[in-house]
This record gives sequence, structure tokens and C-alpha cells, in this order.
Amino acid sequence: MAEDPRVVIIGGGFGGLYAARALKNTAMQVTLLDRRNFHLFQPLLYQVATGTIAPGDIASPLRLVLKHQKNVRVLLGEVTGFDVQARQVMQRDGSPIPYDTLILASGSEPNYFGHDDWRRIAPGLKTVEDATSMRSSILLAFENAERETNPEKIVEWLTFVVVGAGATGVELAGALAEVARKTLRDGFRHIQPADAKIILIDAVEHVLPGYPLDLSIKADKALKRLGVIIRTNRRVTDVQPAMVQIGEGEHTEYIHARTILWTSGVRASPLGSALAQASGAELDKGGRVLVLPDLSLPGHPELFVIGDLANPSIKEKQMIPGVAPAAMQEGQYVAGLLKDRLAGRVTPPFRYRDHGSLATIGRNAAVADLGWIKFDGFLAWMAWAFIHIFKLLEFENRFIVMLQWAWYYLSWRRTDLLITAHRPPAEDPVK
Amino acid sequence: MAEDPRVVIIGGGFGGLYAARALKNTAMQVTLLDRRNFHLFQPLLYQVATGTIAPGDIASPLRLVLKHQKNVRVLLGEVTGFDVQARQVMQRDGSPIPYDTLILASGSEPNYFGHDDWRRIAPGLKTVEDATSMRSSILLAFENAERETNPEKIVEWLTFVVVGAGATGVELAGALAEVARKTLRDGFRHIQPADAKIILIDAVEHVLPGYPLDLSIKADKALKRLGVIIRTNRRVTDVQPAMVQIGEGEHTEYIHARTILWTSGVRASPLGSALAQASGAELDKGGRVLVLPDLSLPGHPELFVIGDLANPSIKEKQMIPGVAPAAMQEGQYVAGLLKDRLAGRVTPPFRYRDHGSLATIGRNAAVADLGWIKFDGFLAWMAWAFIHIFKLLEFENRFIVMLQWAWYYLSWRRTDLLITAHRPPAEDPVK
Repeated sequence: MAEDPRVVIIGGGFGGLYAARALKNTAMQVTLLDRRNFHLFQPLLYQVATGTIAPGDIASPLRLVLKHQKNVRVLLGEVTGFDVQARQVMQRDGSPIPYDTLILASGSEPNYFGHDDWRRIAPGLKTVEDATSMRSSILLAFENAERETNPEKIVEWLTFVVVGAGATGVELAGALAEVARKTLRDGFRHIQPADAKIILIDAVEHVLPGYPLDLSIKADKALKRLGVIIRTNRRVTDVQPAMVQIGEGEHTEYIHARTILWTSGVRASPLGSALAQASGAELDKGGRVLVLPDLSLPGHPELFVIGDLANPSIKEKQMIPGVAPAAMQEGQYVAGLLKDRLAGRVTPPFRYRDHGSLATIGRNAAVADLGWIKFDGFLAWMAWAFIHIFKLLEFENRFIVMLQWAWYYLSWRRTDLLITAHRPPAEDPVK
Repeated sequence: MAEDPRVVIIGGGFGGLYAARALKNTAMQVTLLDRRNFHLFQPLLYQVATGTIAPGDIASPLRLVLKHQKNVRVLLGEVTGFDVQARQVMQRDGSPIPYDTLILASGSEPNYFGHDDWRRIAPGLKTVEDATSMRSSILLAFENAERETNPEKIVEWLTFVVVGAGATGVELAGALAEVARKTLRDGFRHIQPADAKIILIDAVEHVLPGYPLDLSIKADKALKRLGVIIRTNRRVTDVQPAMVQIGEGEHTEYIHARTILWTSGVRASPLGSALAQASGAELDKGGRVLVLPDLSLPGHPELFVIGDLANPSIKEKQMIPGVAPAAMQEGQYVAGLLKDRLAGRVTPPFRYRDHGSLATIGRNAAVADLGWIKFDGFLAWMAWAFIHIFKLLEFENRFIVMLQWAWYYLSWRRTDLLITAHRPPAEDPVK
């Protein structure tokens, strides 16, 4: 009896999970391997970072999500490399996992553009731990301002810099403004949280690059209404504890801020280069693997790369953004292609269907570009809220997140304002 | 103009927070100092450790809880000592806080009875981080069992030891049994989570010591129905990675278990001995401060100790258990006494009013001893659920926890099954 073909998927994000789900009811043995035991709904991470929802609300255990799909086994493990001749994935614990087909979907990580030392000062926002640690930094800044007596230092503690004016940066800056102006109001005796300065910096010309200009301008206005200071056309040239330097030469400016948050772009997971080395594939400048129009590697029809890690522009000039819908579509595409192969059918090249972009700015403003229609304001906010709620995997998470948003909408209260895993205030670390 | 008397409260647990709240509308300037920015509802921590509720559901920011009480300021800080002559509290950052009256309510921590090296292997359950780390250990054990091929090691990974058969240990063991038998069912391909052995160990004769014997026996039966193995009358004599030794000499037994959880008693916060040294007060064997019947220190009517850290048996032989209601009553008592002093009234000694004990065993069993009535089963479970829901500080937390319990009740699903802040599986740490 011939064994069912073994498909190994690395990464349980949008790409990997949707590939695994699309392989339901097929004669393939699927192994889904991830370093974490849960799928994370990253588009709402900024709401964890600002205390509106809990980490568990946007994290679903992969094992339980897939428990009724009997041809899938989920394994917790860390991949260290590939043996494409032997068709094996190598794990940190030394045990190899054999495959007939490999789908690499290990995503991306924050990009500091060659300045990895900035990461310690200006944390990114890709993991649950990033979000809870960002939440702790934000809340701790207000606590330290309340304890401080030196007026200059109080201003430093109450200055928050968000680097990167893409969707995450815009959403984070808007939420942060509301935390300061609304949620924390009346909570302090020495400081006014509303005095906080939130500064959004990016080298691009307008916030939300990639959106139509009129929506960028609307987002700009909505952020300014919330009191966010927008510094576009400014490149960050240095990050030090309590200081961001922007511009160069005579245009150099220094912003004194104790809290610096990084949402400026991503770079490919290092597994991309490991696979490229093992297979002879090429990487683009961002470390993404160049794949054929069917998302496989040249000369390796058994190797696929999807999601943030894939660059399918090798032959066709289609630009695919690093967003969740693209990863989902790629996961489903590869699953379909594998089914076609088993059935002896030919699959047309992958085509990204752009369903549009949505970003939210504070409690009830948003901008939406659905291609055939652009809109903003409360209607866009409602569209944003519904789409995000219904994309959450689990019914119960949808319900709880909806309730928490409703509660926040009515009361401005955020429910998850914990400072965790921090050291209590000691000597001032900045001299 | 004479300044209002300054009351400094150390610790925002049940004792400190209820003291601060009871000083509402008085001519006293209250400072509430805590290392954490939130009040934690510790009786439900075991539900965080077993994934039923999120940390944020049982943590309320002290600052926001007290925001409308204008005579209270909340400070995040760590106390390192006391100068009772100068009437100052010393903080880690070097800045002193002056007081006219001091209320020390810094609580307790897990007690390893002289074996602090066990703590690393067998974590306790007092903080949010303890609970999320316990949750990670529990879930990781099932993940590692699924990856393991050696049958002996699989059994070790699926063996869970809970040390301590008080209310926390009983509740934790019951919840853990349900996680294994219900919540994780169908989630694995190589192991059956229901094969997990949960072993509850204590040196006492019956589970729930301090409860009436018939309720202890009922709790024992309810635990056994859930498949929990109860080893009472057994003292833990050594803890090693993957091994618990119980008994001594020829009665020595070894239990091979990868997950060892510690709920066996508490010891006083080290600030108790710091205050005793500074004031000349005495400590009992558990490190608790011996206080007068009005909870003040001998010779120091301006110093009070309340909650788990106080031992008020100096003159009267009243045994006060280390539970939340006792701490709340003591906090309210001291606040009343301070108001009486300002008004020139005399306050009678503190008397603990025992409203009874409640413990829950799994989804819908519980035992209750309210003094005038004892009951068990579903009715006790309902009483337990309602009392705990209504003692949560914030309306929204009550609502979310109620919904999550209802959801769990209907579906057995737990919503917060994240493994966080762990290293992925590498080499087996146990040889």
C-alpha cells in the first residue's frame, strides 16, 4: 500500500494555517510545524499593545483549531535547516522530519535596516511578547512620569515616538493617543496623561503609503484631531536610550523620548536564506525567496514559499503586499495546486486578488479603499470592525472581542492594562 | 493650616486596597504604594494557570480603581526598608516617602520550607507571571509528550504533580484533570491527553485541611471522579527535575513527573522582617509580624500590619486564616480605627468574622462551609461562582469572566491556551 504523500508546512500564520485547512479531505499527510502553539491574528496586535484586548483573544491554539482535521498533525518545534536532497527538515532537537512536499511560511520579523542594536531600545510588534512588553513600556512611562520631579524628565517620559507610518504605526499612534487622552484620564495626581506627546515619524511623504492619496490625507487629519504629531519626510538616523535622531547634517533634529516604538517595515524570516542556500534559490534585497509564478522554487517543484517570505516577481511583475489576505490566498493556492497535481490537472499561475485596504485611527475613524469604492469615517470604522471580528478564527474570540470593543466604545475603558514582567523603578537608567 | 495626616499603605492586595477605599471622604492624604500597577484577584489565579480566563480578567489597575478617590495617590515603587524614627519608607530608587501612619500589607509568597532550590523546578502560584508560566509548563508538557518517542518519557511528560492539598491545590488539580480529559481531547495524534496522571500530594491527612471532615471527604471523592490521584499523609522530601521524592527511609517513593506545581503554603513577605527590625517588633515562626489586637505594633501606634503578613495572636488567641476576606476586614478595620482616632473615639479590638470557606473541584462540583450550613455539589458550585464573580472589582471583568465560564460550561473550551515566553523544544534537559 503506497503511503499518502507527506506535506510539511512550516509556520502556522495566515499562509501556513490556510494551506493546512485547504488540504482538508485530501489523501495527503500534513505536518504543520511552528515554534509557537498558536495562530496569532497579527492585525490586532496593536490593540494588545494598547490594552484594549487580551493576548488570548487573538491567539488560537493551532492544535485545537485543526483537531477535527485528521490528516493534519501539529508539532511544536524549531526548524534550523533543510536537506533538500534527502527531503528532510532539520529541527533544533536534532530529529529530522521527512517530506514529499515542503511549504515554507515562516513569515517576517521587524526590520531595523542594519541597525539591530536599535531593537533593544525601540521594540517591534510581531509577537505576543512584543505586544505585552510594548504595553508595559507605555504604561510604565506614565508611572515613571508620575514619580518624577524633574520637569524635563517628565516631558521625556510623556513623549512617545512611533517609527513607521504604515497601517500598524497609524493604528498604534491613534490608540496611544486615546489611551493618554481618555483611558488614563483622572488616574494620576501629579501629571496629566493628556499632556503626552505622540509623534509619528516616517521617511515617506504621507501616512499610509500605498493607500490612495485622499485617504492618506484623511488619515493624517484624523490623527491630528487625536493630537498625534506627524513627522513624515523624516528619516530616523539614530536611536539612543531616550533619544531619536531624525534627518542628517544641518537638518538633524533630536527628539527626547523615553518610549520609542518600531513599526517600520519587516524583513524576511532567516529560514528563507537557509532554504535558498540548500536549494540554490535566490533572495531579493529584503531576504525574500524568489519563487516561480506557481510559488515553487526554480528546479524544485516540491518546494514552495508563501506569505511574507515569498517574492513571486521572478517572471511576472506583480507586486504582492505583505498582508494577511495575500498569505491566505497563497496558502490556499498551493493547497489547490497540490490537489491538482494528485488529480493530474494543470494549475494556472497564482494571482493576488486585492480586496482593498483598511486602517483604523482611534475609536471611530477609519479609512477604507476597496478598489471600487473608497470611504472613511464611522462607516469605514464599522467595516473595519466587522471584517476583523469575522476573520478571527474562533467564535468565542469574536464574541469577547466584540464585547470588549463595545465596552471600550461606551466607556473608553481598556481592560488589559497590566504591566508584566518588568523590574520596578530603580535608579534612572539614562544619565 | 495644618496638613492632613499622611497615611502610607504598602501593597495593593485585598488588605491594602480595602484600607485605601475605606479611607474615602476622610481628611487623610493616602499614598498606596505597590510594585505592580494592578490589584490581583488571587483566588482565581489557578484559572489563569489552566487557561480558562485571561490575566487581565482578574487584574484591575489600582490607579483606575481609585481614580475618583481624590485623597489617594497611587505610586508604583519598590520598598526596601523603613526608618521608623524619621517616619519614612525607603524605596529602591532612593527617594523616601514620609508618613504619619504606615499600613504594611505586602502579603506573602510561596513557601518551600527551607528548600528554595525547589522553586525553580516546582513553581508557585502567587503572581500573574507565575500563572502564565505554569500555564506554559502544563501545555508544553503535552506538546513534548506528542513529540517524544520513548514511552517512559511520554509517561513522565504526562505526569503532573500538585504539591499542597489546600484550596488552591485542590482547585488546580481539578482544573488540570479537566484540561487533560476534556479541553485537549482530539487535539493530539500520538498521545491521548486523557492518559495524563494528576497526582495531588500533601502531608496532611485529608484534602482541604481546615474544612469540616465531611466536606474534605466529599472533595476527595469529587477529585477521584475526575481521575486525580490523591496521596495525602505523604511528605515531599526532595524535588529534582522530573522527580518528586515522598516519604523517608524504607517508605521512600519516587514519582517521575516533568511538571511539578507548588501550592503548599505561604511565607510572609520579607518586608515584615524589615519592619520588625526597624521597630523592635517580633516575628512568628512563619515570618509574620506579631501585632496587638488593634493590628498595630507594640509601642508604635502609628504602625499597622494587616493581611497575610500579620499575626494578631499576641494577646488574644484568635486564629486568622491567610485568606482574602480576613485581609479585607483588617484593611477596613484599620481605616475605621484611624477615623476613630481623628474623631477622638476608641475602637474595640479587631475581630475576624468567618463567613465560611468555599472550594471548587472541576466544572460543577464544589464544597461550601458557611458555618451555619455546609453543602456541596452543583449548588456549592453556583455559590462559589457567584461569590467570586461579584467580588471582582470591575463590572466589565465580572461580565467577561461570567461569559467565559458560561462558554466553558457549554463547550469545555478554554480560551487562553497560550504558551508564552518559552524556549522551543531543544535537547532534552533531563539526562
